[in-house]
Amino acid sequence: MPTIRVVLVEPKNEGNVGAVARAMKNFGVKELVLVKPCRLGAEARQRAMRGVDILDAARTVGDLETALKETDLIIGTSGVDTESEKRFARISVTPRDFATRVAKMDGLVALLFGREDFGLLDGELRRCDLLVTIPASSDYPILNLSHAVTILLYELMATGAMKHGKREASGMEKEKLHEAFKSLLAATNYPAHKLARTQVMFRRIVGRAVPTKWEFHALMGVIRRAAKRIQRLERKD
Amino acid sequence: MPTIRVVLVEPKNEGNVGAVARAMKNFGVKELVLVKPCRLGAEARQRAMRGVDILDAARTVGDLETALKETDLIIGTSGVDTESEKRFARISVTPRDFATRVAKMDGLVALLFGREDFGLLDGELRRCDLLVTIPASSDYPILNLSHAVTILLYELMATGAMKHGKREASGMEKEKLHEAFKSLLAATNYPAHKLARTQVMFRRIVGRAVPTKWEFHALMGVIRRAAKRIQRLERKD
Repeated sequence: MPTIRVVLVEPKNEGNVGAVARAMKNFGVKELVLVKPCRLGAEARQRAMRGVDILDAARTVGDLETALKETDLIIGTSGVDTESEKRFARISVTPRDFATRVAKMDGLVALLFGREDFGLLDGELRRCDLLVTIPASSDYPILNLSHAVTILLYELMATGAMKHGKREASGMEKEKLHEAFKSLLAATNYPAHKLARTQVMFRRIVGRAVPTKWEFHALMGVIRRAAKRIQRLERKD
Repeated sequence: MPTIRVVLVEPKNEGNVGAVARAMKNFGVKELVLVKPCRLGAEARQRAMRGVDILDAARTVGDLETALKETDLIIGTSGVDTESEKRFARISVTPRDFATRVAKMDGLVALLFGREDFGLLDGELRRCDLLVTIPASSDYPILNLSHAVTILLYELMATGAMKHGKREASGMEKEKLHEAFKSLLAATNYPAHKLARTQVMFRRIVGRAVPTKWEFHALMGVIRRAAKRIQRLERKD
């Protein structure tokens, strides 16, 4: 089982933050990081109930990158699954899928939750390896912030009992894989306007597949090999 | 799928009642019955957000029996699963078990949730056909009332309505992707003894990632492009 870090991005309602701390305590998750949160007062503490120690230990940071330090996998939550091919950045899995994948991992996993009104912004969603959308009524799919956190942590607990332990690729190794993929795109003179989108696509696929160390090395081997072969042939050219 | 009636027994906190109405709206459940509730004022309405119509339509009754009228199945929720044979009344199933059973049913199902502090009393638990306990940390297993409702309704939706329909790449398309990957390996003069193993690895990764049509086309584009570039440069060579 991985270690879970809950990251709330610019929460506006202190009651919600307290309720999140309580849910974390209920599901045995300890690390809470708040990115530019609202002021936390008596209501947050009251709603936290016996999770008040988690609230008190929460770290407040000024930007998302600081909140993501040392993480091996970044999971974003998005309220609405647009089902649109074009909004590629938002294609997502169910909470159960998410839990099944993550339960097998080791390392530090960040769960990102956005603002109560606007959720996570596009740039923030792009930082994520995997997106989770909670299935809900199309009439009103926007869940309360602490309800969304509760469902994801509940799924982890309900699924997690089967602790696998499957030598996943680490965060640093994954970055190397993405670097190699980028080099391959460059070697093929990939169209500049599609470059960012295709890299995000690859990041998502790898994020969803949760490759083992061996798979990761084999895949990186193929990609590096192809890029080098092109470079070598071009030098002769 | 059955019709679901949410029954809150003597809720003490109006904010919780509002949050329950919101969660019901999120998961498409309409019927709310309140047994001797606290006074419902502005906070309940505010927390209900767009579930305020459910809150306004909620029936208030003076005793549990009235709340259970016309129901075909009565489900109780209890915070702590005692695992004790003697306390027979409290032996219970998981939310997932509950959802799997109920999703197959027709008729009217009442979901009973007890007081924020004492839960359901023994006499009330005895009225239930089935008890559900949400798995939680033994350190602090008592969930917030609206969190408990959210998890049960979420499980019903996640289990009952598996009709997602997510434009996955078809089997034939996937075979084309694997052909393209094979060609790329060939173009890089991939070592023959590792060929089969690496193709299986790629097949596994793609299988786990379940790419959408768009992702599939983008990935195949990159792979074909790299293979062609090598072939073209070699022809010149």
